[in-house]
Amino acid sequence: MFVSRSGNVVIAQGGGPAVVINASLYGIVREATRKLSGSSKIWGARGGIEGVLQERWLDLREPSEHLWKSIANSPGAALGSCRKMLSTQEAREAVRVLQKEDIRYFFYIGGNDSMDTALKMHQAASALHYELTCCGIPKTIDNDLPCTDHCPGFGSAARYIAQSAVDLGADIRALPTPVSILEVMGRDAGWLTAATLLARQDPDDAPHLIYVPERPLARESLLRDVQKIYDQQGWVVVAVSEGVKDEKGESWGAPRSEKMVDGFGHKLPGDVAFRLAGLVTSELGLRARSEKPGLLGRSCALMVSSVDRREAREVGKFGFSWAHKGHSGFMVSICRDDSRAYSIEYKAVPLSDVANLTRLFPPECLAEGGNDIKEAYRAYVEPLIGGPLLRYSRLHPSPIRPAKG
Amino acid sequence: MFVSRSGNVVIAQGGGPAVVINASLYGIVREATRKLSGSSKIWGARGGIEGVLQERWLDLREPSEHLWKSIANSPGAALGSCRKMLSTQEAREAVRVLQKEDIRYFFYIGGNDSMDTALKMHQAASALHYELTCCGIPKTIDNDLPCTDHCPGFGSAARYIAQSAVDLGADIRALPTPVSILEVMGRDAGWLTAATLLARQDPDDAPHLIYVPERPLARESLLRDVQKIYDQQGWVVVAVSEGVKDEKGESWGAPRSEKMVDGFGHKLPGDVAFRLAGLVTSELGLRARSEKPGLLGRSCALMVSSVDRREAREVGKFGFSWAHKGHSGFMVSICRDDSRAYSIEYKAVPLSDVANLTRLFPPECLAEGGNDIKEAYRAYVEPLIGGPLLRYSRLHPSPIRPAKG
Repeated sequence: MFVSRSGNVVIAQGGGPAVVINASLYGIVREATRKLSGSSKIWGARGGIEGVLQERWLDLREPSEHLWKSIANSPGAALGSCRKMLSTQEAREAVRVLQKEDIRYFFYIGGNDSMDTALKMHQAASALHYELTCCGIPKTIDNDLPCTDHCPGFGSAARYIAQSAVDLGADIRALPTPVSILEVMGRDAGWLTAATLLARQDPDDAPHLIYVPERPLARESLLRDVQKIYDQQGWVVVAVSEGVKDEKGESWGAPRSEKMVDGFGHKLPGDVAFRLAGLVTSELGLRARSEKPGLLGRSCALMVSSVDRREAREVGKFGFSWAHKGHSGFMVSICRDDSRAYSIEYKAVPLSDVANLTRLFPPECLAEGGNDIKEAYRAYVEPLIGGPLLRYSRLHPSPIRPAKG
Repeated sequence: MFVSRSGNVVIAQGGGPAVVINASLYGIVREATRKLSGSSKIWGARGGIEGVLQERWLDLREPSEHLWKSIANSPGAALGSCRKMLSTQEAREAVRVLQKEDIRYFFYIGGNDSMDTALKMHQAASALHYELTCCGIPKTIDNDLPCTDHCPGFGSAARYIAQSAVDLGADIRALPTPVSILEVMGRDAGWLTAATLLARQDPDDAPHLIYVPERPLARESLLRDVQKIYDQQGWVVVAVSEGVKDEKGESWGAPRSEKMVDGFGHKLPGDVAFRLAGLVTSELGLRARSEKPGLLGRSCALMVSSVDRREAREVGKFGFSWAHKGHSGFMVSICRDDSRAYSIEYKAVPLSDVANLTRLFPPECLAEGGNDIKEAYRAYVEPLIGGPLLRYSRLHPSPIRPAKG
């Protein structure tokens, strides 16, 4: 299929943002500005694919370079986002909107669902014989897109949650309340929760138990695990995925309401950690708290990973560059070299290999008991968080063991 | 009463820590080392007043200056903490333990309950005719100790939660999920929740509603307030205190378990924000989330306030210095000058004026509707957070208004 090598550009952002999502936007805009003639449109659609359908445009040539640099470091989707499952019919409508404006490049920055949107746009353009280059730019803190070593947004969220586990450990270790359960985002994938492994340096460091959605969590296992750690050292920090389920496949989170589904029909999980903390308190007689930073974990620019930020920008630049070379229907992928030092390159993978698929946490990195992550995972995740975590000092190697109850 | 001007020292930490709690510890140790002869003991009791009763000592002269500087910047009570309501009998036992070791200075770093402990120790020593200088060093993120302009620990926690409101606003503003409810610590006082006011710069900045425990929150008021803001601008961030109650005085937080009371009999609140988010979703049909950073808000050393850290150390130094001059039965207080620039001095107030009292958020800073904080509060809290918050940029002044439901 012939693809135009010059022309107008539309960029949109879908799904939940990450702290580096606008670095990718900036990367595309910068490269497009460099490679296209000054008369080409470089537009943003406000509010994701809905912004295309409703023709809500922003001229992305307008902001100054100074403003762009600040936008690139700002959390939250600068263009606004949506969660919309695009029908075939709507995809054709959206393509016709782009056709009307003579748009030849369409970039969608997002996660699994957004890659579905990008693919549908690619297919609709093809069916309508309209020459439109469609490109997906990966972005998800969940790290669950297939065909890429990791996803922009993940490294910063991993840094945030690992630092949070360090901080929480320092607090709980010295506290009369001996148990805290930290809830971690990531939907049905455990990548982010598993990253709390990085908080550990000394043998008794938090978190002491890590539960990911890839393994069912039985009530009895939780209680047995917590009691065991408590008996060993007198305090327990648990990291648990928001998507964790019991043996019957039921979410541990109380559903907030039947209305709580997103535009793709995904159920929005309730408070998992709160429920588990209640269980520990009532069944074991150990006072347990829960912490749930939630969206703070993907919007905290103070804890951004420098590696993640750089890669997010580069992914955008590569995406435009590859599209400009005449390719379409692809997502940018990050490939890691096998060499020992961290080194990556960018490639393109077909959107059809990516859309709607979820890459779960690898079983070989799960510890036997289903309550921990193997150290092997550290080598994967550590380079992504962009430098060492803030560490604290102790006056005494062991905590006070609080009186039970 | 004559008080010894040389002698041995015991320091302990009570209640929940703050990120600067060890700066106060360092301040006392540093001043004691300077003013006492090298043969004087400078001990820490491990695990609060229980550590005294159980004679769990740490020699605080041992750590190097290098380690001390690191400890001073570490969150979590370095000595370990407890929550114990001391009986008169136990206070006498504790004094006898100190007497056995010829301890002449007793410092207790903590909040309201800890000041009660310090006072009981002072009274017990007096009753036993043992010359013991008892000093309370204030520390609470709740900022609810009377007789002081503010409390060490509060400024950093205020910085954390205000920055969190900025971050959350940037995320939610661009998101299809239009409502987020941020739960803030602070028990029965609204000081910390009110500090989210600092997140606001532009007229539509988060948080849009602020609920503190000093005013009852009726179900209908919440729903009306959220709907109104949503109708105006299409997204809503709410800051709510963990201690907020309904018109009948019932906590909005579901009690986790009847067992969830601390050593002082205080009920530990459940998830307020989670319940309110459920209400908004089911009653208004607006998808609402909740975020509850919990203990992360008092243990995040990355967001420490430089002002708070300095004052925490100085409060410790002043405490020792004042005690060394022969005073006893006091808490160190921070007094703010009336002059325009931020300027403070340290004073001593009788522990009997402080113990067990809670200084609630001032009614004159509450907005009429009970759903906001007056701008006047900004002048009070802004100097305490130690510099401006991290601010972000926008591509477009107004967010996409998401389709309702």
